[in-house]
Amino acid sequence: MASTKPARGTRDFLPADIRKREYVVGIIKEVYERYGFEPLETPAFENLETLTGKYGEEGNQLIFKILKRGEKLRTELSADAKEADLADLALRYDLTVPLARVVANERERLPKFFKRYQIQPVWRADRPARGRFREFYQCDVDCIGSNSPVIEAELISAVKQVLSRLGFADFIIRLNHREVLRGMLDAVGIADDRHGDALIALDKLDKIGSEGVLKEFAERGLIGGERLIALFERLTDAGNMSIIEILGEFVGDHAAGKQGLADLDRILSLAATPSVKIDASLARGLSYYTGSTMEINVPDLSGSLGGGGRYDGLIGMFGKEQIPACGFSLGLERILVVMEERGMFPPKIVESTPADVFVTIFSEETIADSLKLANELRGHGIRVTVYPQAGKEDKQWKYANSIKVPWIFTVNSTDVAEGMVSFQNLATRERFREPVDKAAVIVKEQLSAVSR
Amino acid sequence: MASTKPARGTRDFLPADIRKREYVVGIIKEVYERYGFEPLETPAFENLETLTGKYGEEGNQLIFKILKRGEKLRTELSADAKEADLADLALRYDLTVPLARVVANERERLPKFFKRYQIQPVWRADRPARGRFREFYQCDVDCIGSNSPVIEAELISAVKQVLSRLGFADFIIRLNHREVLRGMLDAVGIADDRHGDALIALDKLDKIGSEGVLKEFAERGLIGGERLIALFERLTDAGNMSIIEILGEFVGDHAAGKQGLADLDRILSLAATPSVKIDASLARGLSYYTGSTMEINVPDLSGSLGGGGRYDGLIGMFGKEQIPACGFSLGLERILVVMEERGMFPPKIVESTPADVFVTIFSEETIADSLKLANELRGHGIRVTVYPQAGKEDKQWKYANSIKVPWIFTVNSTDVAEGMVSFQNLATRERFREPVDKAAVIVKEQLSAVSR
Repeated sequence: MASTKPARGTRDFLPADIRKREYVVGIIKEVYERYGFEPLETPAFENLETLTGKYGEEGNQLIFKILKRGEKLRTELSADAKEADLADLALRYDLTVPLARVVANERERLPKFFKRYQIQPVWRADRPARGRFREFYQCDVDCIGSNSPVIEAELISAVKQVLSRLGFADFIIRLNHREVLRGMLDAVGIADDRHGDALIALDKLDKIGSEGVLKEFAERGLIGGERLIALFERLTDAGNMSIIEILGEFVGDHAAGKQGLADLDRILSLAATPSVKIDASLARGLSYYTGSTMEINVPDLSGSLGGGGRYDGLIGMFGKEQIPACGFSLGLERILVVMEERGMFPPKIVESTPADVFVTIFSEETIADSLKLANELRGHGIRVTVYPQAGKEDKQWKYANSIKVPWIFTVNSTDVAEGMVSFQNLATRERFREPVDKAAVIVKEQLSAVSR
Repeated sequence: MASTKPARGTRDFLPADIRKREYVVGIIKEVYERYGFEPLETPAFENLETLTGKYGEEGNQLIFKILKRGEKLRTELSADAKEADLADLALRYDLTVPLARVVANERERLPKFFKRYQIQPVWRADRPARGRFREFYQCDVDCIGSNSPVIEAELISAVKQVLSRLGFADFIIRLNHREVLRGMLDAVGIADDRHGDALIALDKLDKIGSEGVLKEFAERGLIGGERLIALFERLTDAGNMSIIEILGEFVGDHAAGKQGLADLDRILSLAATPSVKIDASLARGLSYYTGSTMEINVPDLSGSLGGGGRYDGLIGMFGKEQIPACGFSLGLERILVVMEERGMFPPKIVESTPADVFVTIFSEETIADSLKLANELRGHGIRVTVYPQAGKEDKQWKYANSIKVPWIFTVNSTDVAEGMVSFQNLATRERFREPVDKAAVIVKEQLSAVSR
């Protein structure tokens, strides 16, 4: 017999899970739309070549690949076939690369400054762990077509607003810049073609600490690690303005590094919020970033709630035109984990019920009356569930209680003949007997009083 | 350079597409929740063995399979490897089999009568054609745990309500029953083990007509085709009650067939709607149906808007317990195609804009003022987009017009100094100069007047 578990690293979402997810997604959408971002959705799978070469070597290996079919598969089969021979499609690994493809494909139909949000699952063949899944949702917001720091400022403002609306007050948005990092690596004498290696090592600073990074620098044969670590230590408790000053001295005459620092300075002044903190060690794993990089942290979560940055070179990989772009990605699962642990969901979400009203069926003869009553109440906007078959009264009351429906309506032939319906509030035990229209008014009044 | 097109048979959804899709999905969810159905979501992929053997041979071949990874793949590679050796996971093919798996897995956490809706994409490696995609959305509604005809009646009522709310008035819900079909096949002398073949042939009646079905019967060596076709012709213009009578004579003493007819009779009387029509030729392709089957048609669409039925044996394939189940699946793409062709979307959906207000940036010095103004307006619940960089006035007006934002707010230092803002309604050309709070009130008043 087949297993009944979902596949490794994936989850089924039962109604109570979905309500929490939809609550968070609803706020994210509302805020992003208020900032003028529009929705976009892309297919779950892409042609394999769309994804390969965009995420670095490690990313490449985590892409789920879809088997070719029929004759196309048979001609490729051999003992030394490669994954890329056997697969033609691959599951979406993030939402940024598909966006870049769409922008290159639909340039004429999209506004010059395309502002889009996208909330969809992505899939990575990672080793599952606590809070790490093989299917998880990203909530992305990006602006295409401008290299102005106004973009970063607006993105930071929007993300800040999302987190505030969800009830987060203690988050930090760490900010850095790839060109400033480049200036720092140049300053300590790391050769251009070793910058990628150095960034991979620095990206782990959070997890493995200074000593771990120094060890990795040594293993990779990279120089300058000590000077970088010393710099980071000196910056630890400094304010944003003195960090920019210290970094200015460190990168010296490095033109791109200086420009990067000027960008950071401008982003800070436009974003105008104490939540943003420059972190010169922030590297971000993905290889497509070219300018600013950002990451959001809260104290009680190792790892980030989300991150992003500027990727002015990615769209050009799909089209003739180089188009600047910058964006932010929030991890839905990370947000949900922290909100769950902190008890941040409002009561109306936590206490939601499958229906407002439960309608009984006591005999075969009154089934049609029960269905009619249910539909009348539904016409008043009330959520109604009907017991699915004729059965004993006490059993049905017990069932209504077990699924926590707050009102129970009973149907009997006397009431029907007299145009009345009997009903009870299961919490207050209060009983009523009224015409249906009046009953609907009573239920709606009490429901809206509770949800207030 | 990689192609910029989405993979074959899949589509990118731009903002205008998504608004239409979300409008339809929103109504479907609202109606299903009003009937007491709760949301469920399952992962995009399942373990391969969860899906194999559930959809018949043809379905099996259309399942997208995901390549094994690393060492697990290498040990399977050979010139005569089978698809099932190379893949361990498969993309969701429908929403019914995952539901059956979840019910078997979560039996204790779910209500005895679990009523769920699920709106998610499914994937089939079908040959793409007009209106046929490899990624498409199903909107399923199912009730688990009861074999009462009340279930069918409530499902029919809910689906009818969805279609009515969307503006459909001319749909027919065709209704049949697997046991009645079985009785008919027995009556013409088709052996038990050939019923599956006969159903596959009958399922094509819509597409290939009587002659096509007779030809396929002959090719498959099936007898009794002529008598069945003659029966269907006799039933063509008959009312539901005489169809039940004629079928009663046709199946004779066939116990299960007679019980099936009694079920149909009861469903008809409880559903109490002229939209339901018994169609004795309705076969439905999927092999898991065991009782009632249903399909929805509109005159201007070949193929159906959706369909469903009873599958009392499916959940038992995943657990020890046989649990009755019945459901309906609406095809989102089919609904959208007909609504598009008939122009059924309300103006607020068709004419929606990326934002309500466009804020200009005329100089580097006033950027911070523009961002502040935008955030103040957003605080009033207005959707605001800001031009992403300082630039010429006429260019920004032109751009605001091109993306059809109805209001434009200009920011200049005089206004800022005096605590005022200048703005214009681009449709009426009316100009205003007011404090920000007053401006927000004016914009909101006019927006709500338009959307009424």
